[in-house]
Parts: sequence; structure tokens; C-alpha cells
Amino acid sequence: MAHIDLQNDLPGIRGLMAYRPETAAHLNALAEILLRDDDNTLTRGERELIGTYVSYLNDCHFCQQVHGALAGHYFECSVEEIDAIKSNGTSDMVSPKMTALLAIAAKVQQGGKQVTSGLVDKAREAGASDREIHDTVLISASFCMFNRYVDGLGTWAPEDRQFYLNRAPQRAKEGYLMTDLKK
Amino acid sequence: MAHIDLQNDLPGIRGLMAYRPETAAHLNALAEILLRDDDNTLTRGERELIGTYVSYLNDCHFCQQVHGALAGHYFECSVEEIDAIKSNGTSDMVSPKMTALLAIAAKVQQGGKQVTSGLVDKAREAGASDREIHDTVLISASFCMFNRYVDGLGTWAPEDRQFYLNRAPQRAKEGYLMTDLKK
Repeated sequence: MAHIDLQNDLPGIRGLMAYRPETAAHLNALAEILLRDDDNTLTRGERELIGTYVSYLNDCHFCQQVHGALAGHYFECSVEEIDAIKSNGTSDMVSPKMTALLAIAAKVQQGGKQVTSGLVDKAREAGASDREIHDTVLISASFCMFNRYVDGLGTWAPEDRQFYLNRAPQRAKEGYLMTDLKK
Repeated sequence: MAHIDLQNDLPGIRGLMAYRPETAAHLNALAEILLRDDDNTLTRGERELIGTYVSYLNDCHFCQQVHGALAGHYFECSVEEIDAIKSNGTSDMVSPKMTALLAIAAKVQQGGKQVTSGLVDKAREAGASDREIHDTVLISASFCMFNRYVDGLGTWAPEDRQFYLNRAPQRAKEGYLMTDLKK
């Protein structure tokens, strides 16, 4: 049960967003531009993967399941393959550039000052642009917010992973700018 | 020097926001509603204090100076009095309710799951509403993002605290919805 009376029984961040739509609008707009905007050389799958990995490192069940299912949807891979990336920070299906960016994201999760110029150089050598490095840091930082928001207020989340897998195609289609927050 | 070429020499988050105004718009809108919106029973000073305290716990020089100067501006107190609150999580000028909310904010900084129902009960007993508890968690979570964004990209920040004190009254007047991000 959530730490406060949300006046709804929606899971994870959805319950919080229905409770406080005024802040939800800006959180959703931020997620939309970071994770879905077309003006980005990182694919939607790659950006969801960064969010999934950081949510895993923050041990946020709801966020890692939601975004892991979305990453799997975009990559057209199984949930087990996403799990392997979460555990190892890479896999055969992850490019050297993305592996280097995930390493940066993991440091941001620990704290901003943990990112070293060596890690940034490595990402650049693997082909990452400044914009990609910027967005990786901001996506990781934003999930450090989303994860804390979801768990800091003690929201509930379905255990069954199938719940998240079932919803991913619809979420991929609709995006984060939900007009009906109660849905 | 920042980890990426920001093409400007603005300090802290201002350099990042000028580099990527598309994401800055949503970050500023979030800061504005969380820290300044009039539909809130926490004062602007109290909300800036939460942001200052979390930025201190995250060891983010730029954010703790900017928001500490703003908190001091609203509370009409010295920077030393703000420092005392940062060190102790309270002071004579902080109400029991705010002390309890700062304790929740400190747990959110460590990780969402660190917030206990005991801490939430304590805040409620000290007079905090569900909305105030919600906003405290989200403000703390959002500063865990802002701090990581600022330090994760290695931005520079003036050491001299007077720089921040001088700017606080103007920032308090203008708010976070800057139309000219390069200013």
C-alpha cells in the first residue's frame, strides 16, 4: 500500500500521476522527449534500455519491468535477453557504443561525480556523439528521479511480468503523453 | 571543463540547458511547478530548502549554492543558517513538520525504498498532509536528477558563494521559466 492515500488503485507511477496530474504533465513530457522524440540518433529501444538498466540498478521493480518490456518490444527480443543486459551491462545484441553509454549511465546512477573523462572518451571512441552522451546522462539521471518517486511513496506494482509484456505494444504506440491519466 | 562541448561557458545546469533547450523546457517547467507554484501549502522557502538539503547530500556544489541562496532569500536568513540546516537536517528556524519532511527527503536521496512508513507517520503527526509528503518525495527525487545531470556532465560552477547570493533575488523574481536560456 502506498505511503499516502492516492485515491486510486493504479500501479507504480500511474497511481502517482493520477493523484497529482499537475506534476505528471511535466514528467510525461520529459519522458516523451527523452525516450521517444524522433530527433535523436539513439533508437527508442536504446533509450528504453538505458532507463531499464538504471531502474534495475536502483532496484525499482515497476520501472524496470515497464521499460524492460518496452526495450524488448523495440529490440524484438525476449525478456530473458533484456535480463542478461541488465545483469552484465551488455550482451551480444548491444553495440560497443551502447555498452560504453550504459557504463556511463551506471556511474550516473551511483552519483554524478562518478562519471570520469576516461569513460566519456571511451564512449566517444566507440562512436558516441556529444548529444548522445548528454542524453545518456540525462536519461539515467531522470530514471534516478522516476525510480525514487515510485518507491519513495511506496507504490504497489504487479509481480507478474506478463502484465508488463502485454502492455508494452500499446504503450509503444501511444507514448507517454497520455491524455487520460486514469487509463 | 564539461565532459562534452557545450558551446557556451555558462555554469552548472545553465550551460546544459543552453546546449539542449528542448529538454530544458520540461526540466524548467517541472522546477517551476514543484518549487514555485502558488497552489502549495509548503512555502517557496521550504521547497527550496528541500532541494538545497538534497543537493548537499548529493554533494552538488552548483545546486546547493543556487538553491541555498534562494532558501536564504525567502527565509530572510544568512547563508550560515542555511548551512546549519544542511549539516543537521534541522535548526531552530525549521518547524517540526519541515524537520520530518527533510528526514523523508534524506531517505529518498539514498533510495526510494529507504522511506519507511514510520517516517511518513511521523511527518503526518507533525502536521504534514499527503500532498506535502508527495511533493517532498518528488522534490527530493527531482534533485537527485538535477544533481546527477549537473555533475554527470562535469559542468563547472563558480566557487565564490557571493555569486549565488547576488543572483538569488533576481531568480526569485523571475522563476525558472526563463524565456532566454542564454541569460
